[in-house]
Amino acid sequence: MRLLILGGDGYLGWPAAMYFSAKGHEVAVLDSFIKRRWEMELGVEPLIPTPPLHRRVKLWEEIAGQKIGLYTGCLTEGRLVYKVFEEFRPEAVIHFAEQPSAPYSMIGRRHAIETQVNNLSGTLNVLFAMKRSTPGGHLIKLGTMGEYGTPNIDIEEGFIEIEHKGRRDTLPFPKQPGSFYHLSKVHDSNNILFACRVWGLRATDLNQGVVYGIDTEETARHPRLNMSFHYDDVFGTVLNRFCVQAAMGHPLTVYGRGGQKRGFLNIRDTLQCLDLAMRHPAGEGEFRVFNQFTEVFSVLDLAELVVQTGRKLGLETEVEHLTNPRVELEEHYYNPVHQKLSALGLQPRLLSEVLVDEMIAKIVAQRDRINPEAIRPRTKWRSV
Amino acid sequence: MRLLILGGDGYLGWPAAMYFSAKGHEVAVLDSFIKRRWEMELGVEPLIPTPPLHRRVKLWEEIAGQKIGLYTGCLTEGRLVYKVFEEFRPEAVIHFAEQPSAPYSMIGRRHAIETQVNNLSGTLNVLFAMKRSTPGGHLIKLGTMGEYGTPNIDIEEGFIEIEHKGRRDTLPFPKQPGSFYHLSKVHDSNNILFACRVWGLRATDLNQGVVYGIDTEETARHPRLNMSFHYDDVFGTVLNRFCVQAAMGHPLTVYGRGGQKRGFLNIRDTLQCLDLAMRHPAGEGEFRVFNQFTEVFSVLDLAELVVQTGRKLGLETEVEHLTNPRVELEEHYYNPVHQKLSALGLQPRLLSEVLVDEMIAKIVAQRDRINPEAIRPRTKWRSV
Repeated sequence: MRLLILGGDGYLGWPAAMYFSAKGHEVAVLDSFIKRRWEMELGVEPLIPTPPLHRRVKLWEEIAGQKIGLYTGCLTEGRLVYKVFEEFRPEAVIHFAEQPSAPYSMIGRRHAIETQVNNLSGTLNVLFAMKRSTPGGHLIKLGTMGEYGTPNIDIEEGFIEIEHKGRRDTLPFPKQPGSFYHLSKVHDSNNILFACRVWGLRATDLNQGVVYGIDTEETARHPRLNMSFHYDDVFGTVLNRFCVQAAMGHPLTVYGRGGQKRGFLNIRDTLQCLDLAMRHPAGEGEFRVFNQFTEVFSVLDLAELVVQTGRKLGLETEVEHLTNPRVELEEHYYNPVHQKLSALGLQPRLLSEVLVDEMIAKIVAQRDRINPEAIRPRTKWRSV
Repeated sequence: MRLLILGGDGYLGWPAAMYFSAKGHEVAVLDSFIKRRWEMELGVEPLIPTPPLHRRVKLWEEIAGQKIGLYTGCLTEGRLVYKVFEEFRPEAVIHFAEQPSAPYSMIGRRHAIETQVNNLSGTLNVLFAMKRSTPGGHLIKLGTMGEYGTPNIDIEEGFIEIEHKGRRDTLPFPKQPGSFYHLSKVHDSNNILFACRVWGLRATDLNQGVVYGIDTEETARHPRLNMSFHYDDVFGTVLNRFCVQAAMGHPLTVYGRGGQKRGFLNIRDTLQCLDLAMRHPAGEGEFRVFNQFTEVFSVLDLAELVVQTGRKLGLETEVEHLTNPRVELEEHYYNPVHQKLSALGLQPRLLSEVLVDEMIAKIVAQRDRINPEAIRPRTKWRSV
């Protein structure tokens, strides 16, 4: 299948490109490298430097004997997006090409607007390009479980049947996103739903939980095929950050009480989910939402798991509670449904201690590269 | 009270500025005049030319003895918005400064993105400026009933209590907007709700129905104090357009079957609603939604009312059903709640035949100015 991966330089985009290429698909990636610039702006870098995408694509061809097409350019440039879709005519599009950080979006006015305008206009350009050149194609869009917030009812997969004053309808699940970044994902979802309804496009919105993991089967094939693994306060996800802190023997920084519950999944399961979505595309005019995670933990439970695992590896660490920089409930009900991917056959790799073990061991091997000053949160949701 | 009206050149902005100035408030308006450019781009103009805002402000001062402050500039320019808020320090802000047309937003890629980026970034700049300079001020934002779409349950005012699997929460009412313009209003609402929750701002979102009317008490004080009254396919609202068609003796163009039901209100009631919202501000951190309309009609009922009224004035006209350029249900359940403004004391001017009568008579006096070619819909939601 001709598969276009938007944001092919990133933490998920690059492993996805190799994964689908290895399976024999005709893969092309597009990236503007703007995230590299955002990293420089904030003075952070991935734990292990990632070679330029051009070089990794070449290396992959040498190792796997498969070509990955490479487009450079920004989704906010509508004419370029039209050109890429007209030329490559993707049958499936995986869209990761967005500003992915909640703290980045909360730095201030400029960052909030940049995040929303970048994400929203990039996604709109993709929708218009699909309408124009590949109206039968399948858009697989990365959303986030953070779109829902933490309502006091079970979170359904995208839609909910509501009975109200004796009448009934199935409506989009009400969203309560917790940052300008999360809001941008809600805006996208609303725009995509509309495009499916009006133009008959097919789309799957993957409301993903918090991803963790430092490698995949394909990145492990060569040390320079690695993905962009972040542990910093802006682009790092919580479990990856905890593992890095454990590897340093530093306290694990929990925001507030740590009772915040979230869905989690291994990056290898992300690939599996993408594959399932692609093999079972949405119908014509269908906007489908999958809640994409395998397990729910509280942040504190996760920190304690990492402390225990670290101890077995001879790493002494502890939990440190920081004043929560975010505005969020620190104790709440959380029971999100996640059945649609299971129904398609998802086989989860659950977070046993063995996995955390391996991950910490791999990070310990890179310990000299860690910048301990890049971990504490710098951005507060309220500027009090 | 120091009141800043954003979009003070427009159909609602200018009458609102005079209305509150007449009541003794210290009013300033801001406008970028970008809508004038959009009109030129599409080759349409208001029925009666509106003098430059500078001249109307001056004329108002001569007539009413009250100054209205005038800022020129665009809400998308963040530094300018900061400056205006820092200088004028509004206690209340009425925000009309958005691209207001669904058909405009559906012309194509560029217009969709322009609409959403303009509306969303302008509103974000207002939120950040309020946070910075007037955190206790009250934002009164023009939303639209079109944010809700036409669900098969009663539409509540912004929020709905949902019982689901034995648990209960009050959540934002699920939205199903019907154009990129309506989507932009949903994006705005989500952003404003978040800003209230996180920063403690006060906001009232006025989900307004379809407005009609050609004058207000203040515009009637001088022929050159008129507002921008549109009847064209892009910026004209449906009842205003029907009255213009009747005045010409042309058929009234109903989109599809005409069973589409909508909430309607007189422009003078819009002013009354703004006044009520301003006199009863939202609480600290409160995001409040008022459904702002006084009556529900189907488009066909409205057309028939105008035909009957026209006939009494000696104008022969009839209903013509056009292929619907939009994607919308033409027969549907529609029962939106609108109690909050009534509870504050709204005294509606209902659409009796007398009002339509007056409106058509006023338009007949301007009949020579009508461009009959500007009325039929040019933009289709689906480019089939």
